[in-house]
Amino acid sequence: MKKKSRFLQTPIEPFPVDAGLTADQILARMERISFQGRNLATAHHIWRKMLQDHETRGRHHYVGSPHADDAALAEERVDRVYDTYASEDEFIANDSWIAEFVSTLDPRPYTSREFLYRLGGHLWKTTGSDGILTAAYRANVPIFCPAIADSSIGMGLSQARHNKPGTGYIDVIGDIIESANIIIRRPRTASIVLGGGTPKNFINQASVQAEFYSDEVGGHRYALQIVTDVPHFGGASGSSLEEAQSWGKLSSDSAKVSVQADATIALPLLVSALATTAAPLLQQRAMPVFTVASRVMTIDGHPVPNERFEEVNESAV
Amino acid sequence: MKKKSRFLQTPIEPFPVDAGLTADQILARMERISFQGRNLATAHHIWRKMLQDHETRGRHHYVGSPHADDAALAEERVDRVYDTYASEDEFIANDSWIAEFVSTLDPRPYTSREFLYRLGGHLWKTTGSDGILTAAYRANVPIFCPAIADSSIGMGLSQARHNKPGTGYIDVIGDIIESANIIIRRPRTASIVLGGGTPKNFINQASVQAEFYSDEVGGHRYALQIVTDVPHFGGASGSSLEEAQSWGKLSSDSAKVSVQADATIALPLLVSALATTAAPLLQQRAMPVFTVASRVMTIDGHPVPNERFEEVNESAV
Amino acid sequence: MKKKSRFLQTPIEPFPVDAGLTADQILARMERISFQGRNLATAHHIWRKMLQDHETRGRHHYVGSPHADDAALAEERVDRVYDTYASEDEFIANDSWIAEFVSTLDPRPYTSREFLYRLGGHLWKTTGSDGILTAAYRANVPIFCPAIADSSIGMGLSQARHNKPGTGYIDVIGDIIESANIIIRRPRTASIVLGGGTPKNFINQASVQAEFYSDEVGGHRYALQIVTDVPHFGGASGSSLEEAQSWGKLSSDSAKVSVQADATIALPLLVSALATTAAPLLQQRAMPVFTVASRVMTIDGHPVPNERFEEVNESAV
Amino acid sequence: MKKKSRFLQTPIEPFPVDAGLTADQILARMERISFQGRNLATAHHIWRKMLQDHETRGRHHYVGSPHADDAALAEERVDRVYDTYASEDEFIANDSWIAEFVSTLDPRPYTSREFLYRLGGHLWKTTGSDGILTAAYRANVPIFCPAIADSSIGMGLSQARHNKPGTGYIDVIGDIIESANIIIRRPRTASIVLGGGTPKNFINQASVQAEFYSDEVGGHRYALQIVTDVPHFGGASGSSLEEAQSWGKLSSDSAKVSVQADATIALPLLVSALATTAAPLLQQRAMPVFTVASRVMTIDGHPVPNERFEEVNESAV
Repeated sequence: MKKKSRFLQTPIEPFPVDAGLTADQILARMERISFQGRNLATAHHIWRKMLQDHETRGRHHYVGSPHADDAALAEERVDRVYDTYASEDEFIANDSWIAEFVSTLDPRPYTSREFLYRLGGHLWKTTGSDGILTAAYRANVPIFCPAIADSSIGMGLSQARHNKPGTGYIDVIGDIIESANIIIRRPRTASIVLGGGTPKNFINQASVQAEFYSDEVGGHRYALQIVTDVPHFGGASGSSLEEAQSWGKLSSDSAKVSVQADATIALPLLVSALATTAAPLLQQRAMPVFTVASRVMTIDGHPVPNERFEEVNESAV
Repeated sequence: MKKKSRFLQTPIEPFPVDAGLTADQILARMERISFQGRNLATAHHIWRKMLQDHETRGRHHYVGSPHADDAALAEERVDRVYDTYASEDEFIANDSWIAEFVSTLDPRPYTSREFLYRLGGHLWKTTGSDGILTAAYRANVPIFCPAIADSSIGMGLSQARHNKPGTGYIDVIGDIIESANIIIRRPRTASIVLGGGTPKNFINQASVQAEFYSDEVGGHRYALQIVTDVPHFGGASGSSLEEAQSWGKLSSDSAKVSVQADATIALPLLVSALATTAAPLLQQRAMPVFTVASRVMTIDGHPVPNERFEEVNESAV
Repeated sequence: MKKKSRFLQTPIEPFPVDAGLTADQILARMERISFQGRNLATAHHIWRKMLQDHETRGRHHYVGSPHADDAALAEERVDRVYDTYASEDEFIANDSWIAEFVSTLDPRPYTSREFLYRLGGHLWKTTGSDGILTAAYRANVPIFCPAIADSSIGMGLSQARHNKPGTGYIDVIGDIIESANIIIRRPRTASIVLGGGTPKNFINQASVQAEFYSDEVGGHRYALQIVTDVPHFGGASGSSLEEAQSWGKLSSDSAKVSVQADATIALPLLVSALATTAAPLLQQRAMPVFTVASRVMTIDGHPVPNERFEEVNESAV
Repeated sequence: MKKKSRFLQTPIEPFPVDAGLTADQILARMERISFQGRNLATAHHIWRKMLQDHETRGRHHYVGSPHADDAALAEERVDRVYDTYASEDEFIANDSWIAEFVSTLDPRPYTSREFLYRLGGHLWKTTGSDGILTAAYRANVPIFCPAIADSSIGMGLSQARHNKPGTGYIDVIGDIIESANIIIRRPRTASIVLGGGTPKNFINQASVQAEFYSDEVGGHRYALQIVTDVPHFGGASGSSLEEAQSWGKLSSDSAKVSVQADATIALPLLVSALATTAAPLLQQRAMPVFTVASRVMTIDGHPVPNERFEEVNESAV
């Protein structure tokens, strides 16, 4: 019998079905199947590896149908996002609510990071309910939103300015400087992308910009993307993580995987698994401590300027 | 406050993450999120509803990479399927093994159903190992393969004829008659499609063909598809289940859902959940009993001809 | 200034818009743009290169809408294919017409190649109108249809057998042998795939099967695919031409390009260009001459058996 | 014979191939085929209808390969976008060039519209070469870039601030007000989207924001999108134009079509056709006259404020 090719080392194994499997058990059994299932298992693996290295003003959306009569929806002032509905009147009320809040702020530029922290705080004090902005507010996790002008929040900001000239200035260029400075301070970073779009390039350009000022930065060390777009049309949303390496957005030896799947399927499975598997790893890590409340944020007590780039890494401090 | 629109009835709810969730718990929590996650939860729901209504000669594939040097693989006689490898020599050996088995059969036409049952039986006796063909052989479940000529098995059949003239005749038209007759006998059928392709249309045309001869057939009552292809290029693989209703392939009131996802992610999650949730439902059902071993198969003791269409339903028997 | 990288040789140029451009001029100008436009230009280039190396029973399809009420269509017996409609009654009448024709044939197995030639001939004599089958009939071009059981023609064949036992046998395994034998005779072949599916693998496995019997066959020398499916789910329809090289379906040095586009956009543009550019090349080529009318087809006077594989190439004859 | 169904009115016709067809002739012949080809023909039709209603500092990108060794590219400082390369050093030089130019501007907030006009002017004076920014500068066409922070230009702006504190402020909220005011002034607008992303929602939210202040605005009257993303994952890039109608982004009676294709294939064909067919229509139209040079732009002599929304339509002036 001919010698087995060097390419044929790790046999593919069928997924063994059992009753009562938990998310982490399902992902563990996906590690030896083919295609995107294996990639999702790899994503779980990389996330855990990453953790070993170091780390609502609630209106509702409604269950709807993709086969809607959109003229009827428009007449009832209902907005559709594929199979999900939202109330136009609630959007308008929400824009006004944001505009009102903006009027209470000093008329100066705010990075999206500072603005969203303040909006999260206002939301938490008003509603006490859980959501992305309120959770980030309570955990002091900075949120950057480079395309904030392309959103309902942006529309609220523009209405604030209409009502009170001089307000509603968002400093998106300051966001670039801050995000790069975070990486300069703490270079072993991860890029976790859900669905592509503007945030994908923003988090990846941050490491390129950081490297321009600090040689110790060499691209993100970990990269996961759960995307549905494809590389062959040349857009950033679908671009491969290999392309990102050519740009220096990711280091050439970064642990990385692209999962071609709708995040609404892959993410619940992945985070349900992590809820079990990450717990022991998190106990062994020191979380970076942010203060996000003011014009200049800090990380572990050090200021993160938005007017100039830093050149000093954490390790060098 | 304006009255809530009739369209805004069921609020979307975020997926609540917890440690130790099982597949069925994850899918239950997906029922109120948006997009494909909700569709996968609906697929689970339909499958359970369906159950309430009534009723390897093992060479390996190997873990590989999509970024392979295919010339190097070709030189080592390794075949690539995206991120998965297989040995060319094992394929060739397998084709010969099939050709040899075919030579032991009477030189007459076989439906793909009969041929695959016999091949499954030979596999089970030779290897005793688990796989799709051997599992179907042991459970007497008929398998139809309308595009068998487009496969490695087809190549084995062609080599059998090269070696022994008059062998290797597969009666794919007989498959059409048999598959329609099964539906004529037992009209409350389901169409479960993984990935599209020839099997998708074949199982769906069976109900159209069946209805041509029996008025009690009105299209499949249940339909699930887990597909990655899209409707707007007009192909059958990506076609919507709504299109299938216009053809009468599905009844106009069939329970149905399309899940846009790679089956290697969605299927392990779905069947892991069903392994828990289907058990009590299966105990309340009588499975249909097939005999698949000979030229004419039977269902619950009644013959299913492959030379002529029947016109009598089970309920009428 | 740093020396220009070896990777930066051929500058991308914008597409220059002008009035009155013909298809071939448009494709020539696409040769220096990015992404799928450039690939379509390459497809044109490869097709011309290929030419240097050496074409109804017309019922209609109707302009429809993807946003149809499929229950209403079903009630009117109208079948939908995305944005296109067809009449169910015409389909049924057509199935019966096919069944009637089949009853006139001798009750023996027919390769899909022989059957489709005879059906094309019957169509031409009955209608005198232009279509794929009638054009191929008139030009003596063989057509193989490995998944014929998964089609309206297959349904017609099954109805023929219902009416006249012993008819409707299609020898899809004979198709495998014939298609491989064509390549064994004339090894410098091209694989032109529109949209994927069963025909994609069938034409590609033919060269693998041919090589098994004749060492002078080394995979298709030219390969073009205009597809919308993607590689990363592991299916054959979306598989890359590189994967096909690992299998030996294409030679390792084959000229090849994948165009990621709907054939209904790319093909009219490409063939409009070829209608201009291919004319001079075709005058310099000898076309292979087929006879397709009987049980055994011929190429340039030599028989192409469907019972056994040949081992002799044209050049060796 | 049964009466022809009301659904079966317009027969599909095959594309007739001829030598020497021009782009407009090809598109005209696509009007009766199926799927995306027909949609591209419809896009051409809508664009002409729209016209009847009223109305580089050149470094290169290089031809590359999608099968690159990205580590080798990174080492040579070459950036990859699928099959296209660019020089990292030229990007860095370009960022510096932008930073230098920004330092010459008054340290005040600029809308992206004003900034890009000024950058286009500087480019034209420096290079005299043709490109999107220089062409728009010369024709006084306003360009909005809501996600400017997510780009190489954004990186240049951040470096300008590093060098000269107080510079590099882009007023993306002013962009929202200006873009809505343009629509309030001239409500019969079109939304032409190539590829999706942030610009797609930005141009569509402009009409929603405009309608909030002026009842005569009722959504864009014309909408074309040439996209590759799909609706079923719920993202804005792939969202259908029907969804946009539910939001009031498009009027319920807008002429609209989605073409599912790579713009690098569909756009050259479409604009080549328009270069012929639009000429006579353009002669019958009065173009709107913009001044884009200063802090407040004008349209036909009327100011378009970026500090407050207008409520007066052109027709009412």
